[in-house]
Amino acid sequence: MRQKMADMVHRIQDEICEQLRSLDGVDYRQDEWTREEGGGGRSRVFSGGKVFEKAGVNVSVVHGTLSPQAAQSMGGGHELKGKDLDFFATGISLVLHPHNPMAPTVHANYRYFERGEGEKPGSWWFGGGADLTPSYLFEEDAVHFHTVLKNACDRHEVADYGAYKTWCDDYFHIKHRGERRGLGGIFFDDLNSASKDECFAFVEDCAQSFLSGYLPILERRKDLTYTEQQKDWQQIRRGRYVEFNLVYDRGTKFGLTTNGRIESILMSLPLTSRWEYCHEVASGSEEERLLQVLREPKDWLSE
Amino acid sequence: MRQKMADMVHRIQDEICEQLRSLDGVDYRQDEWTREEGGGGRSRVFSGGKVFEKAGVNVSVVHGTLSPQAAQSMGGGHELKGKDLDFFATGISLVLHPHNPMAPTVHANYRYFERGEGEKPGSWWFGGGADLTPSYLFEEDAVHFHTVLKNACDRHEVADYGAYKTWCDDYFHIKHRGERRGLGGIFFDDLNSASKDECFAFVEDCAQSFLSGYLPILERRKDLTYTEQQKDWQQIRRGRYVEFNLVYDRGTKFGLTTNGRIESILMSLPLTSRWEYCHEVASGSEEERLLQVLREPKDWLSE
Repeated sequence: MRQKMADMVHRIQDEICEQLRSLDGVDYRQDEWTREEGGGGRSRVFSGGKVFEKAGVNVSVVHGTLSPQAAQSMGGGHELKGKDLDFFATGISLVLHPHNPMAPTVHANYRYFERGEGEKPGSWWFGGGADLTPSYLFEEDAVHFHTVLKNACDRHEVADYGAYKTWCDDYFHIKHRGERRGLGGIFFDDLNSASKDECFAFVEDCAQSFLSGYLPILERRKDLTYTEQQKDWQQIRRGRYVEFNLVYDRGTKFGLTTNGRIESILMSLPLTSRWEYCHEVASGSEEERLLQVLREPKDWLSE
Repeated sequence: MRQKMADMVHRIQDEICEQLRSLDGVDYRQDEWTREEGGGGRSRVFSGGKVFEKAGVNVSVVHGTLSPQAAQSMGGGHELKGKDLDFFATGISLVLHPHNPMAPTVHANYRYFERGEGEKPGSWWFGGGADLTPSYLFEEDAVHFHTVLKNACDRHEVADYGAYKTWCDDYFHIKHRGERRGLGGIFFDDLNSASKDECFAFVEDCAQSFLSGYLPILERRKDLTYTEQQKDWQQIRRGRYVEFNLVYDRGTKFGLTTNGRIESILMSLPLTSRWEYCHEVASGSEEERLLQVLREPKDWLSE
């Protein structure tokens, strides 16, 4: 499974980057990096292109020994020792920030983790998800994005769209703002309730569905006209994105405290962002309409 | 002491804001706020003026009951119960971000804390400090800023500039970057090694010295000419400021997890900031000269 998952995420990275390259009119910068403690990764970042302010697609395959701190948080209450402290992790992680404030930011991440030999129950799992973060609300975009994810879930017995949708809303919660980061999507972790192959098939399906979930939305929005005020609002929303990632995101925190490659971890941050003191949106405005669904997550597929 | 410290921080807020107003050519926005659990504060923020991109000066006087989590981290290993869980805190906190990339950002914070009745040994303390964060290094500015702080320390037996300077370098450490946030200054906490009045006299002296430490620097730099590239570098440094405050700063983390007034806590963030993937500075450049002293803090007053 280690090799199978590593191969899959590399293939998906190639596919996605190929599409982004043709859209963006520039090539990505690629950095292959190694990790002192074992393994490494391949980061690809677009910047200065037609469509994206900044867009990063990263894969990594790392292994090593869990730190006492990490072992504690991953042992599920059991003390891990000796061989059980060995770990292997591989995954793909991407964040795309378009220039146009009408085009949403998107994030996706699919990963596989093993402790020890990865054979005992509970010593391996998959995790991941995808979520959409617009500055302006187009309901049809939210519906399309969630539909593609629900369809992927529905094709696999192991997956549960409803539960993963709620998990996503709960995870991407900027608690100090009382807002979700975006319109959600799916989020799941510790997935091992079927065979490795069945779980993999679901995760692969999600990863392969990424482009069909996002590209139609991007195509519709990337060339819309917008005002300077709308660009400012996007920058304020970018600030919220930064707040979530630096204050709450587990992957970011894990990376920052475990000697990860900083530039790959923080490639999720937008190129620019803005914090206005006590910014308020006008009553009845499009900005307020977005805030409402960030404050009270909607079930996009209910009707 | 509660009233004495609260009066002092309000007086200093008035003095500082008066000076900033005349410099900046705009008035501040004032928000008086109350905290559900007890007490409140007075936030003043400048924005859109001639000199400052964003400048906030906040005072607060709050009281209440420590949460179990806060009690644990503040009990110094002892379990706190009953009346000992009551707390009182008052202080002033300010962050000034000038427009001009040649003019440094400055931060200062002075506070007084009591647990219970504040009479038992170890149940009261002062804390605080000030530090300077430029985008471009002018050694004379660093020397002036540190000299003013050292002189304040030297006037009080309870204070130790050398120890507080090191504490500041250690505290404002962006560990994942291997950089300090800025050129340092002083930082101290848990100060109660003399009488309350003696500790107060030192803290008051520091707070009263703030303007003489910063304004001469600001006057020298605020109207210098600069290039677009220099403005970009300032924005990248602002990004590092955001990283420190959201990932490491104890006051920010405490505020975000204890239902503080979010806009007052996050007024320390710059108006705008920037994250370029794998940004590199040219060898021998002014940008590299700054990075060198952020990576290896200097003793500015050694010669």
